[in-house]
Amino acid sequence: MKKTLFYRLLAICVCTSGTLLAQDKKMLGYTDSEAVRQQQLEARFDQHLSSSHIGEAIKSLSSQPHHIGSARGKAVAEDILQRFKSYGWDAEIVTYQVLFPTPKERLLEMTGPTSYKAVLKEPALKEDGTSGQEGQLPTYNCWSADGDVTAPLVFVNYGLPEDYEYLERAGVDVRGKIVIAKYGRSWRGTKPKVAQEHGAIGCIIYSDPKDDGYFAGDVYPQGAFKNEYGVQRGSIMDMVIYPGDPLTPNVGSTANAKRLDRLQAPNLLKIPVLPISYHDAAPLLKALDGPVAPDAWRGALPFTYHIGPGKTKVHLKLAFDWQIRPCHNVIAKLKGAEEPDQWVVRGNHHDAWVNGAADPISGMAALLEEAKAIGELSKEGFKPRRTLVYCAWDGEEPGLIGSTEWVEDHAAELQEKAVVYINSDSNGRGFLNASGSHALETLVNQVGRDIIDPQTKVSILARRQAADVLRAATVKQKKEKLSRQGIAISAMGSGSDYSSFLQHLGVPSLDLGFGGEDAGGEYHSIYDSYDNYVRFKDPTFSYGVALSQTAGHTALRIANAVTLPFDFRKLYETVNGYVNELTELASDLRETTALENQLIRENKYQLAADTAKHLSPPAPRAAVPYIDFSPLQNALAGLDTVTQGFSGKLATGKPQLNKQLYQAEQQLLSDKGLPSRPWYKHTLYAPGFYTGYGVKTIPGVREALEQRRWKEAGEQIDAAAAAINRLAKYLQALSNN
Amino acid sequence: MKKTLFYRLLAICVCTSGTLLAQDKKMLGYTDSEAVRQQQLEARFDQHLSSSHIGEAIKSLSSQPHHIGSARGKAVAEDILQRFKSYGWDAEIVTYQVLFPTPKERLLEMTGPTSYKAVLKEPALKEDGTSGQEGQLPTYNCWSADGDVTAPLVFVNYGLPEDYEYLERAGVDVRGKIVIAKYGRSWRGTKPKVAQEHGAIGCIIYSDPKDDGYFAGDVYPQGAFKNEYGVQRGSIMDMVIYPGDPLTPNVGSTANAKRLDRLQAPNLLKIPVLPISYHDAAPLLKALDGPVAPDAWRGALPFTYHIGPGKTKVHLKLAFDWQIRPCHNVIAKLKGAEEPDQWVVRGNHHDAWVNGAADPISGMAALLEEAKAIGELSKEGFKPRRTLVYCAWDGEEPGLIGSTEWVEDHAAELQEKAVVYINSDSNGRGFLNASGSHALETLVNQVGRDIIDPQTKVSILARRQAADVLRAATVKQKKEKLSRQGIAISAMGSGSDYSSFLQHLGVPSLDLGFGGEDAGGEYHSIYDSYDNYVRFKDPTFSYGVALSQTAGHTALRIANAVTLPFDFRKLYETVNGYVNELTELASDLRETTALENQLIRENKYQLAADTAKHLSPPAPRAAVPYIDFSPLQNALAGLDTVTQGFSGKLATGKPQLNKQLYQAEQQLLSDKGLPSRPWYKHTLYAPGFYTGYGVKTIPGVREALEQRRWKEAGEQIDAAAAAINRLAKYLQALSNN
Repeated sequence: MKKTLFYRLLAICVCTSGTLLAQDKKMLGYTDSEAVRQQQLEARFDQHLSSSHIGEAIKSLSSQPHHIGSARGKAVAEDILQRFKSYGWDAEIVTYQVLFPTPKERLLEMTGPTSYKAVLKEPALKEDGTSGQEGQLPTYNCWSADGDVTAPLVFVNYGLPEDYEYLERAGVDVRGKIVIAKYGRSWRGTKPKVAQEHGAIGCIIYSDPKDDGYFAGDVYPQGAFKNEYGVQRGSIMDMVIYPGDPLTPNVGSTANAKRLDRLQAPNLLKIPVLPISYHDAAPLLKALDGPVAPDAWRGALPFTYHIGPGKTKVHLKLAFDWQIRPCHNVIAKLKGAEEPDQWVVRGNHHDAWVNGAADPISGMAALLEEAKAIGELSKEGFKPRRTLVYCAWDGEEPGLIGSTEWVEDHAAELQEKAVVYINSDSNGRGFLNASGSHALETLVNQVGRDIIDPQTKVSILARRQAADVLRAATVKQKKEKLSRQGIAISAMGSGSDYSSFLQHLGVPSLDLGFGGEDAGGEYHSIYDSYDNYVRFKDPTFSYGVALSQTAGHTALRIANAVTLPFDFRKLYETVNGYVNELTELASDLRETTALENQLIRENKYQLAADTAKHLSPPAPRAAVPYIDFSPLQNALAGLDTVTQGFSGKLATGKPQLNKQLYQAEQQLLSDKGLPSRPWYKHTLYAPGFYTGYGVKTIPGVREALEQRRWKEAGEQIDAAAAAINRLAKYLQALSNN
Repeated sequence: MKKTLFYRLLAICVCTSGTLLAQDKKMLGYTDSEAVRQQQLEARFDQHLSSSHIGEAIKSLSSQPHHIGSARGKAVAEDILQRFKSYGWDAEIVTYQVLFPTPKERLLEMTGPTSYKAVLKEPALKEDGTSGQEGQLPTYNCWSADGDVTAPLVFVNYGLPEDYEYLERAGVDVRGKIVIAKYGRSWRGTKPKVAQEHGAIGCIIYSDPKDDGYFAGDVYPQGAFKNEYGVQRGSIMDMVIYPGDPLTPNVGSTANAKRLDRLQAPNLLKIPVLPISYHDAAPLLKALDGPVAPDAWRGALPFTYHIGPGKTKVHLKLAFDWQIRPCHNVIAKLKGAEEPDQWVVRGNHHDAWVNGAADPISGMAALLEEAKAIGELSKEGFKPRRTLVYCAWDGEEPGLIGSTEWVEDHAAELQEKAVVYINSDSNGRGFLNASGSHALETLVNQVGRDIIDPQTKVSILARRQAADVLRAATVKQKKEKLSRQGIAISAMGSGSDYSSFLQHLGVPSLDLGFGGEDAGGEYHSIYDSYDNYVRFKDPTFSYGVALSQTAGHTALRIANAVTLPFDFRKLYETVNGYVNELTELASDLRETTALENQLIRENKYQLAADTAKHLSPPAPRAAVPYIDFSPLQNALAGLDTVTQGFSGKLATGKPQLNKQLYQAEQQLLSDKGLPSRPWYKHTLYAPGFYTGYGVKTIPGVREALEQRRWKEAGEQIDAAAAAINRLAKYLQALSNN
């Protein structure tokens, strides 16, 4: 009976909506007349955005080095606080006390066969006005262990697990050695982690000019790419275990929080790690002997890459100041008129490794511009239906600390109130990049449809669609992209402040930004400066405006919708794709393992190998069993049924269901979390254990398969199926309401 | 009735062959007892092979520079003549008078924005005893035009047609410019040809360290790869029009032959062309401005590659001594006891660009070792059933001159008498490489089955099969290779002396050699020396012995077989694969053209492009029509029918059919030859018009499709179908005999 009533109401609504809005103006969660009003609001919002104001904010907030714990870092937080207040927001600084190590001593030298002492210093450039400032953090990898080690050097390519498989075949053992790995292909923290797993006692990470230097393009200051002295700083906390303050997993780092002993923190490595420039890496790599590195390992330095080990010895000495320091988040609120306890949370970090004009200030400036515009609307009488919570996070760089501590500190409240978390970070010229919860994919498409790309004057959606088509590798994929309505949003891994919202709490999340025409090598270096930004990133700040529009419209649409604009059908479709990937992955693994074992058994590797190269065949692997995916497939069939037409059913306005709608994502959490990393509770999205930033979807299952833990794969299939079943039942109950 | 008799005879033969030979000892064309005798002969042949003697021959024949026309070149021919005579062969020198230009003046300098004068000289090295000798040809591209040009420089990647398509999109026009192209990806002569087609007035070709230098491996003399001064000499005659003396197409360059005016020779370019080292290329490339070169264009020099043009101007001045010079082929014969007018021809060239220890002497030494061993057998009483003709060609390097002139001079005789031509050239450590007429594929497999790889002690066939499996790109391809009986031989393009035999006359041909573990950068440089060879190519000369065995057994099996070992079923299977490729090519072209045109029409290229890079979308292309492949498919169906069981039918011994068997390949010639290059008459195999050495199979059809000449594709389908129909009818008549 209830259901019949529901459909009857739906029919009435569809018929009575008066002048029907064109399909390309429809807004999920809005009636036609509401959509027209919302569009007018967004148009007024846009009129309050100023590219020059964004440019001024970038210049001002990046004018000095401002890492977490620094005086200038605090000043930036206070500056942002004042800005929010001046825009009419209710703002405060919320401070946590977090561990943050800074270098006391950094020494890297080659002691044989010749000697070389690494420079470890990026020079000031006259073309870059802030590059010679005081207060810069030296080049280092945050969370490196203290250490003083001398050992033979081994080149390990990108330092991925498969690189060590090759080393094993080549008879090279890194135990007791120092390894040198290239930046790229994985998150930087994966490299020392895998090195440590294999017994290395130190790890050097360098930027090869192939990936991030003259091979990529003209180098700074002539061009945007890394010059020979440029160094990528960055965290190597093993945040795929958990992010935030390593001493306070699961709880906020308040002054009196219980803290782990640092040496017991499971997400800190035990070996010293240092990032260096290609100027410093070249003499070390050139001195290496041992086997010639395989083709795919070789970079763009002008000599033959060898693996070592041999006569080349290096001495790495690092010591850090392991202090607890204040971490200043700025939290600004604009109270909702109708649903004050439903929060639309929007965030970007404010701390930088050095000046951080791009990372994070370009995104921060866009966020502030949104707050300013909303403030203006507010002065004109606008009141959001729901509460807007705008956040400027501290301590993102060392490990998403500010956001994670705040989320952990307010976990229960956020699971009650947070409708969505909308993140941004570095921003530049180019294409819309959107990732997040797939129930929000339709919303993102509808927002993108209405925003004009500043360069091409088509919608940012159309431009991104064109890029998706052109970037597709095969004719088949190109055709699929061409025929697709709208764009797919990516799944979230890690690397910015959304992680704890989505993956720890199940708050529906989005990450928005522009890029792809702003490539360069300034990332985490002293050259991520305003001078760099205006030449190579977004010279007119028009993509700052585009980000303000994209994130601002998204926030406002969610804030004002009578019915929240979730589209669980898109979630279903996406997860269906993931499950297909997983079944194919299992089949492929089975087929390739059987084939490889046959090749090994039949001696093909020895016969096909260059006999002078002494490369052992790979070790055979246990046969891959057939895996029972039926629990997942059955769960998905249930989600299929319930999500057919589901958005339509709710589009008629059932405000009382909104809280259940935004809490639906929490059904996808598992209590136990992922194997060996219980902090990560989302069954669909997690950073990969060996990729770091890179996402693994349905991670419990996917990583068990990839790492050939068949029993665990079965358990994780059950866990993911249970989560999907929970969601399906939950949505069924909703649509019965 | 005849057919019935044939099958009855066959049945009798199969039943009466006595002790049956194991399947893996069977020899096509031999009865079991003949096979046993032949194997005993081959075992005795093998006993006469000496690796140290091969090493001595390599050392002696490569001890001085010995290019065509040089005194030392003549001395090498005389040395080889004496060797043949001493082995008991009837040998002579057959001399032609051919055009061969040598450099009089070579100047390359950058005149702006800075000045640089190219070294154009490979230094002598103390580690390489012959590298400082008198008599070396300087670094040059033979058949460059004389010229004195000064113009802005443009970097054109590998100088392929698709590179110019990109340049057009980037708005770069090479008309009136000098281009610089990398060696690799095409035969060197393709680069200036395409440059000239696009209006360039000069062409520089250099060896990038990515392809042939420190990126590939340690450089000479530390390792085998090209050092910064190394230069690849080489011919740029447009031999895909015709090879041999450019002045005497189709006829032998005898003293009184009618000669073309050099400036009218259709296979000579009009622009000056010079090869240089990466030491000389670096300052020029570094000085270029203009757009950054696309990823795939960038090499391993330590700076950002730009395309130009801009301020960088170069001056290229080249003058040559265009003399007619003697070209000394050595022809040695051992008369056949039963079929003296059936010739098994075996050849390798003797001329080198400089010392040529690898190219060509390593192959020449193996050939001489075969001649020596056969001479020994002869002294023991062995008489081949057919006549063996062993040849040492002069003038291969500038354009397959010696072999081509001899073949043109003896065309009618060869079409009557030549059963097969077996070629070799450079030889080194590694894997069997075999290409040629596919009716000989079974023979090659049976020969390879019986020869032991010196390093792995399995058969050279098993080793090559293993490599084929491991090199296959996909799981599917790996499985196909695994399930395949034996190896596929490749189709012949060009680049060595088989070309005129196979592609001009339709003499069944093979090219045999070993390699894959002998990579290096000595090719056509002064460092292709004995000192290099014994370190990096085949230190124990055991692959010299393996080549002697492979080519020697092949020659002897063909020479002694009562029924010639042709297997036209393999030819059918191979051509069937080609026809499938062609139909897929047409479908792919149709699909991708339609898709690309849609992307262009819908503006996707503009929208997806980096707006700062000013890259125009590609031009739309005419839609690809459906092509009627049925004539080819019907012809193939006929060949299918006739070749089923065909070898079995002949295996019973029908010696009177042998001449028809070896002349069968001539059925595949077309009188008209290929479009715009009538010298090439074979309808199945030709060097690609834009690949040079690289083969195009069913070239008339394939190149018409690739170059989108649809009408011509239809005509060439008819021509190829006619050839296949001729062969099918011819074989049908044979099996009715």
